[in-house]
Amino acid sequence: MKNISTFRTFNGTLSVHDHDSAVTGTVMRFAVYVPPQAETGPVPVLWYLSGLTCNWSNVMEKGNLQQAAARHGVIVVAPDTSPRGESVPDDEAYDLGQGAGFYLTATQEPWAKHFAMDRYITDELPDIIAEHFPADMSRQGIFGHSMGGHGALTLHLKHPGTYRSCSAFAPIVAPMRVPWGIKAFTAYLGGDRSGWAQYDACELVRKKASDAHILIDQGLADTFLEDQLKPELFETACVDAGQQLTLRRQAGYDHSYYFIATFMDDHIAHHARALG
Amino acid sequence: MKNISTFRTFNGTLSVHDHDSAVTGTVMRFAVYVPPQAETGPVPVLWYLSGLTCNWSNVMEKGNLQQAAARHGVIVVAPDTSPRGESVPDDEAYDLGQGAGFYLTATQEPWAKHFAMDRYITDELPDIIAEHFPADMSRQGIFGHSMGGHGALTLHLKHPGTYRSCSAFAPIVAPMRVPWGIKAFTAYLGGDRSGWAQYDACELVRKKASDAHILIDQGLADTFLEDQLKPELFETACVDAGQQLTLRRQAGYDHSYYFIATFMDDHIAHHARALG
Repeated sequence: MKNISTFRTFNGTLSVHDHDSAVTGTVMRFAVYVPPQAETGPVPVLWYLSGLTCNWSNVMEKGNLQQAAARHGVIVVAPDTSPRGESVPDDEAYDLGQGAGFYLTATQEPWAKHFAMDRYITDELPDIIAEHFPADMSRQGIFGHSMGGHGALTLHLKHPGTYRSCSAFAPIVAPMRVPWGIKAFTAYLGGDRSGWAQYDACELVRKKASDAHILIDQGLADTFLEDQLKPELFETACVDAGQQLTLRRQAGYDHSYYFIATFMDDHIAHHARALG
Repeated sequence: MKNISTFRTFNGTLSVHDHDSAVTGTVMRFAVYVPPQAETGPVPVLWYLSGLTCNWSNVMEKGNLQQAAARHGVIVVAPDTSPRGESVPDDEAYDLGQGAGFYLTATQEPWAKHFAMDRYITDELPDIIAEHFPADMSRQGIFGHSMGGHGALTLHLKHPGTYRSCSAFAPIVAPMRVPWGIKAFTAYLGGDRSGWAQYDACELVRKKASDAHILIDQGLADTFLEDQLKPELFETACVDAGQQLTLRRQAGYDHSYYFIATFMDDHIAHHARALG
């Protein structure tokens, strides 16, 4: 693990690191915020998964994250959204390839060699966090924004014992039924839709609800709301499945980090309460 | 005034605008955050002056500003740091020309035609703010970062009745005695140093202290501390002049917006208290 930069902020430490990932076959960059409470012992760990085009810096610079993490005493890890580099396949569009990993394991060429962001986040990066940071790995939560909200919901529902709390800002909840998801799943997973359901939060929750109470905030001025996000689909699926959900529709808010920053403290408080 | 973008954030409104400036002879862009308290009547106005290379977006995106402004009920205006555009002279260096206006009125060519950021901020932009926003112009404060901290200190000391409260993050306090200031003043004001003192906070405070209590935060891990910032020079000048000053030396903090965000709420609270 190679340290790229370190910043003191809100009495804690934000650090950025590179490491060689065996899962993606690339150098992967991530950031970790460690709150002041960690000086006296391990603290819970939250995983923040970012949206299309983003890397660690968006939420750490614009998300009002460190203040909330320092207030509630949690570590937050911000992985990248895909493998990157000249050797990694890409697409000219912002919603496919580098910056658009969709938190799944690609089965199709040219993506299959490097794109496995779900396994990177669940199987590889946790060992690094556990080894190098004062993290209580028995208390983990997961949250994210847009494509990263999709990642948080699906990874929570598939691994409820690992990610015991879950929340999302403006998540993609039904990728099998919206343009972003259909495009990405077709490219990464192929045309046979039988392999898609394991990466669709609506499908997953209908199969098995979790014991957690999921929090979602959705801005009503979000330009992606009607075509790409459709939170009502997840709301209905949760009712049908008996999944506890609070879906807050926030008037006037868009898809930006100004929206995320506004409700960041609520989300981190939600996780801190659930994780004890 | 032309609206460029508007965002809802922390229950208030951030808006970005262009206007034709008679002072600079260019289109100038600025941002204004209006807190929810302004729905029921005019609120105090704070002017945030940014540092080298910055524009309105740095503090509005990374400064944790809106949360603090919403908590304390103040409008914050973020002007640009210089005139910009193809018709405006520039320099390849980051610390001269566009993005580096130094909050002064240039007397030397090629700068004199456009560079007058002090007059833009004190004489022109306030009328626009008063006309278009719910601003109580009898209660104004000023603060800033680095070069913008220099701007805040000097404009406060020159116009204490206008900017009744003042604070700064890692300000340039003695431009006549540090490389950034000497380079800029030589270019903008010429080699005759008799014209420089009106733009040097240490010189101004020795001439006349204000009634305000100035707050300065300075990170001790700031790489510009020893060569460019030298807060001890202002500390000494304030003692000599009887100027009330709290200079907080913050261990571990650097020159970045991670530092500014950490102490933003303290600064806005400082202004809100002073402005009543």
